[in-house]
Amino acid sequence: MEPVVYERQVYYYETDRMGCVHHSNYIRWFEEARVHFMRERGFPFEELEAGGLVSPVLQVEAQYKSMARFGEAVRIEVWAEDYTGTRISFRYRVRDKAAGTLRCLGRSAHCFLNGTGRPVSIKKALPAYDAAVRRGLFMEEQPEEET
Amino acid sequence: MEPVVYERQVYYYETDRMGCVHHSNYIRWFEEARVHFMRERGFPFEELEAGGLVSPVLQVEAQYKSMARFGEAVRIEVWAEDYTGTRISFRYRVRDKAAGTLRCLGRSAHCFLNGTGRPVSIKKALPAYDAAVRRGLFMEEQPEEET
Amino acid sequence: MEPVVYERQVYYYETDRMGCVHHSNYIRWFEEARVHFMRERGFPFEELEAGGLVSPVLQVEAQYKSMARFGEAVRIEVWAEDYTGTRISFRYRVRDKAAGTLRCLGRSAHCFLNGTGRPVSIKKALPAYDAAVRRGLFMEEQPEEET
Amino acid sequence: MEPVVYERQVYYYETDRMGCVHHSNYIRWFEEARVHFMRERGFPFEELEAGGLVSPVLQVEAQYKSMARFGEAVRIEVWAEDYTGTRISFRYRVRDKAAGTLRCLGRSAHCFLNGTGRPVSIKKALPAYDAAVRRGLFMEEQPEEET
Repeated sequence: MEPVVYERQVYYYETDRMGCVHHSNYIRWFEEARVHFMRERGFPFEELEAGGLVSPVLQVEAQYKSMARFGEAVRIEVWAEDYTGTRISFRYRVRDKAAGTLRCLGRSAHCFLNGTGRPVSIKKALPAYDAAVRRGLFMEEQPEEET
Repeated sequence: MEPVVYERQVYYYETDRMGCVHHSNYIRWFEEARVHFMRERGFPFEELEAGGLVSPVLQVEAQYKSMARFGEAVRIEVWAEDYTGTRISFRYRVRDKAAGTLRCLGRSAHCFLNGTGRPVSIKKALPAYDAAVRRGLFMEEQPEEET
Repeated sequence: MEPVVYERQVYYYETDRMGCVHHSNYIRWFEEARVHFMRERGFPFEELEAGGLVSPVLQVEAQYKSMARFGEAVRIEVWAEDYTGTRISFRYRVRDKAAGTLRCLGRSAHCFLNGTGRPVSIKKALPAYDAAVRRGLFMEEQPEEET
Repeated sequence: MEPVVYERQVYYYETDRMGCVHHSNYIRWFEEARVHFMRERGFPFEELEAGGLVSPVLQVEAQYKSMARFGEAVRIEVWAEDYTGTRISFRYRVRDKAAGTLRCLGRSAHCFLNGTGRPVSIKKALPAYDAAVRRGLFMEEQPEEET
């Protein structure tokens, strides 16, 4: 799927005593990029929450290739890897904005929980949101499976 | 009032590219120390939340005296400065644990809100908690109502 | 002095279990706004570091007026309050971007240290940077005091 | 290899608007546990830095199993998975301290860089530290050079 690009500055408070961005902050940047992607593609995170759902992280992974520093900006490509109606996963590619140097590759996987913390199918719990996700990801609308 | 002492290590991720702890983290340490104080003095924060209240920060202030570094531990003295039943304020003194060098002085002030975000008097909303706070702060029990 | 405006989204990871932005993050936003101000006004922080200096925070203060939430953007007005050649202080006014609601007022004060951690006068240590600060703050160029 | 146990409280500022600990903080807890492990096993991180080296993260991964909340403590088992002299990797198992519920599984991999940012072999750059690592990990001392 086509990535969405999210750009942001590196903040001073994101650096550590090694002089570059602390590795944990890339996990936070992934979230920023994911939220941006969902908004750009027409299924904002806020709508999920307005529907009474949350979307916790099941798994996250990052491979660090080079170090981002204060004063730079990063350019994050983010795209959805998979969406099943009960789970969604994303991939991330972080580059230095100016030179294009690869900084980090990432991946995250998420499920959906209702207000009592039970896993739900978006298709059943919030069908309009499910349709928006599929449109946003350019997925074929699934036939409604005899229901 | 007598301070309570809270100690903790400095974490690597709390440092910045200057090589020492980023100043925003002291504000977080104040919170850790405050939560510790409230537990030690018999009015844990969790009870406030169990009673349906939250306690947002109204004001915070820090004066930085010297720099804490990775590998060190800090020793934070925390004490309540004032409690009125609708507001509580705390003071903080952060020292290097080993040498006692003063790192930071702080102050924070807090109110209490109910579930709809309205300011409340603890005395009215959670009288048992109010009594626990007063006992914990060694305050004279206020005569009930007739004042 | 005329404020510079800095805008940014509220990130999900900046919220806490109260449902709004954790108060410590405003201190970090002040830093973002300050770095933006220094760049906009022609005396970027990176030049200070390139000159071998750092600029630690001496004092920070925030008054919280209302709560910023995920999904919102904030608009931060930042301006320099005072610059003496050895110290600089800033003020901050954080508003909700959409409605203009006041979220937080802040202030920070900073000194300048050389590579060995000694306080320095910018005027003596980095005179070109001192001149850039004064131009950026629309301060009268000080006569060179018989040196 | 035998794990080392590291325990700590969950801090209020580590929670997010979902009401539990933000997933990025586990990555920070891994670092705390790793630093604790290295100290306990006789090869403290500070010695590596005193030798002019840094140890950036090459890869990190977390699988989230359940949600830690404010008011709880966590108990993190940390152990070294592999050490080659140029790389070291760790594994992490985070449990609720009280009930033992599994919260998160993790893994991180690290290399070693010298002051100019070049990857180095600890065995060559800091042989005494290399020996301490091997002792701490109960690894057979490698026969010197002739292999």
